[in-house]
Amino acid sequence: MNIEMALLPGLVRDTPRQVCIVVDVLRATSTISAFFERGVREIHLGANLDEVRAIGARLGDCILAGERGGMAPPGFDFSNSPTQILRAPAAMLEGRAVAFSTTNGTRALRQLVAEGAPLVLTGCVRNGPAVAQRAIAEARRRGCDVTVIASGRENGAKICLDDVIACGYIVHLLRQGAKLDNRPASAVAQLMAEDDDPDYVQLDHAATDLSDYAGEEEEEDFEEEQRNAITRYPFIPWNAVSGSGEKSPTPRMAEEGATLALRLYQSYISEYNDNPTQPSRRAFLAAFNECSGGHHLLRYGWAADTAAVSEAGVCDIVPYVDASGEGLVLRR
Amino acid sequence: MNIEMALLPGLVRDTPRQVCIVVDVLRATSTISAFFERGVREIHLGANLDEVRAIGARLGDCILAGERGGMAPPGFDFSNSPTQILRAPAAMLEGRAVAFSTTNGTRALRQLVAEGAPLVLTGCVRNGPAVAQRAIAEARRRGCDVTVIASGRENGAKICLDDVIACGYIVHLLRQGAKLDNRPASAVAQLMAEDDDPDYVQLDHAATDLSDYAGEEEEEDFEEEQRNAITRYPFIPWNAVSGSGEKSPTPRMAEEGATLALRLYQSYISEYNDNPTQPSRRAFLAAFNECSGGHHLLRYGWAADTAAVSEAGVCDIVPYVDASGEGLVLRR
Repeated sequence: MNIEMALLPGLVRDTPRQVCIVVDVLRATSTISAFFERGVREIHLGANLDEVRAIGARLGDCILAGERGGMAPPGFDFSNSPTQILRAPAAMLEGRAVAFSTTNGTRALRQLVAEGAPLVLTGCVRNGPAVAQRAIAEARRRGCDVTVIASGRENGAKICLDDVIACGYIVHLLRQGAKLDNRPASAVAQLMAEDDDPDYVQLDHAATDLSDYAGEEEEEDFEEEQRNAITRYPFIPWNAVSGSGEKSPTPRMAEEGATLALRLYQSYISEYNDNPTQPSRRAFLAAFNECSGGHHLLRYGWAADTAAVSEAGVCDIVPYVDASGEGLVLRR
Repeated sequence: MNIEMALLPGLVRDTPRQVCIVVDVLRATSTISAFFERGVREIHLGANLDEVRAIGARLGDCILAGERGGMAPPGFDFSNSPTQILRAPAAMLEGRAVAFSTTNGTRALRQLVAEGAPLVLTGCVRNGPAVAQRAIAEARRRGCDVTVIASGRENGAKICLDDVIACGYIVHLLRQGAKLDNRPASAVAQLMAEDDDPDYVQLDHAATDLSDYAGEEEEEDFEEEQRNAITRYPFIPWNAVSGSGEKSPTPRMAEEGATLALRLYQSYISEYNDNPTQPSRRAFLAAFNECSGGHHLLRYGWAADTAAVSEAGVCDIVPYVDASGEGLVLRR
């Protein structure tokens, strides 16, 4: 099983083989998590306020949620604020349907469904461990890979740093989950012994000639470094081991987007000496406050939302997209 | 002046306002650097071996460079190996023209020229400080911004981690350069005093209500954290100060791609406790050896190339694209 990460929805590859986890941490997928935490039955997605009004008219009794300038528009029950939902009276939410407007999130979910993704889940920091666990189980069952997707900004045209950080957290959990459950220590040794693919024998057009390297004053150090590198980084990508511990037919490099997101996540978490598997709210809060999405929330007085989306692993619900009826519906 | 970073050539925004630095560190832009370091006059770019053969036929006397399966194809003088170029006899290179094949690099350079970039430079670790300095000077002179662009893999469809790391180094240098030359300490204080844009007043629909936050057990800590955050991260992007120290008409958020690349770069460099302005070869070597591009070079016996592309600031030459004649030509 490969764990991949797409920095934008347009960068997902081989979608029909991917269990997809879509992340729009500030705030759509966190808001979706909050709705389900408070007991809503289902969430119908629209790409703008008019679509949501139309869904509302079709469904009859339902909650309308969306925002204009940071506030719920006239006639809407909620804005796009997890805090507002977490605080609302239970009677407003339990067992009800929601029509919810989210531009980038809806766009990403629609695109993945249209491209034939076998399963599309929504992820955030709040449900990180739950969504990672579910994705691994579903990918195994279906013989698929897992891709974590950052929704991005401006209709998926621009990288959204907060999404990539949250994706890094989920990639970390996926990687831990896949390793802890499935990778016997001997599998690596076995793989190395079997790694006799003729494409990957060590050639020598440059390596044998290291002492010739122009401008090189520390030949021995350099040769030593490179010998260490070859030992330290053998061609054994961590994702080359399938669930059964057998060698995959085509061992592939770890997806570089996943490495990037993981490194980014770790760079924030390490500032607080947090355990990356159980990060503190404080670490995510500091990270998101550095992002333009977090700046925006602070400036507009939604500071409590930044804290709410930073709570790791407080929700066990894994919303999935049901596209079998009219429009896109999220169920739990 | 804004410093931006595009993770793929397709993600560059507002190209006609960008002084562009294209990076394909393993190995095309490092190879280009090596050619100029050894005294070649100009480099004509082709997107494949046939294009390069055609350029060679047109120019008559020139060096042919390209690769198939890691080696120079029949009739070619060089493969895509900086080490091979750095080691070659001076008589083979000095004052000559080169026809050079590079898939992703040529594609990125062509695209940016077609989109109307005012200036396109090639950057790598070897010429990092020189290209950063030149880009800042040119952007000031032209009233432009600077974008650093990772060439990516597979025709710009896939993120290339080694490129993003090298871009992070150049973003760091650009940021240092812009700050050191131009940002008086008082400019930030002045900006904060002037930051009275009505769009950014502190609203209170959630912030005043923090103690209500559902599930919150450490109210005071949380409020304190968020108050600190608001103080710590005021809406003063580092790039809001123009060269003259005046407030830009539209202060913009730091581009999130640039932050991402910078964080990624720092995460590798900090493992070696290197000064990010003067990173060691050792740190880049370890970083690139973790990337699939570096794996590839190790496996194919081009370990010396990984070391050559990891030498920071050894080259003062800044190649630029000249598209005024036939095809794309790089000059120094």
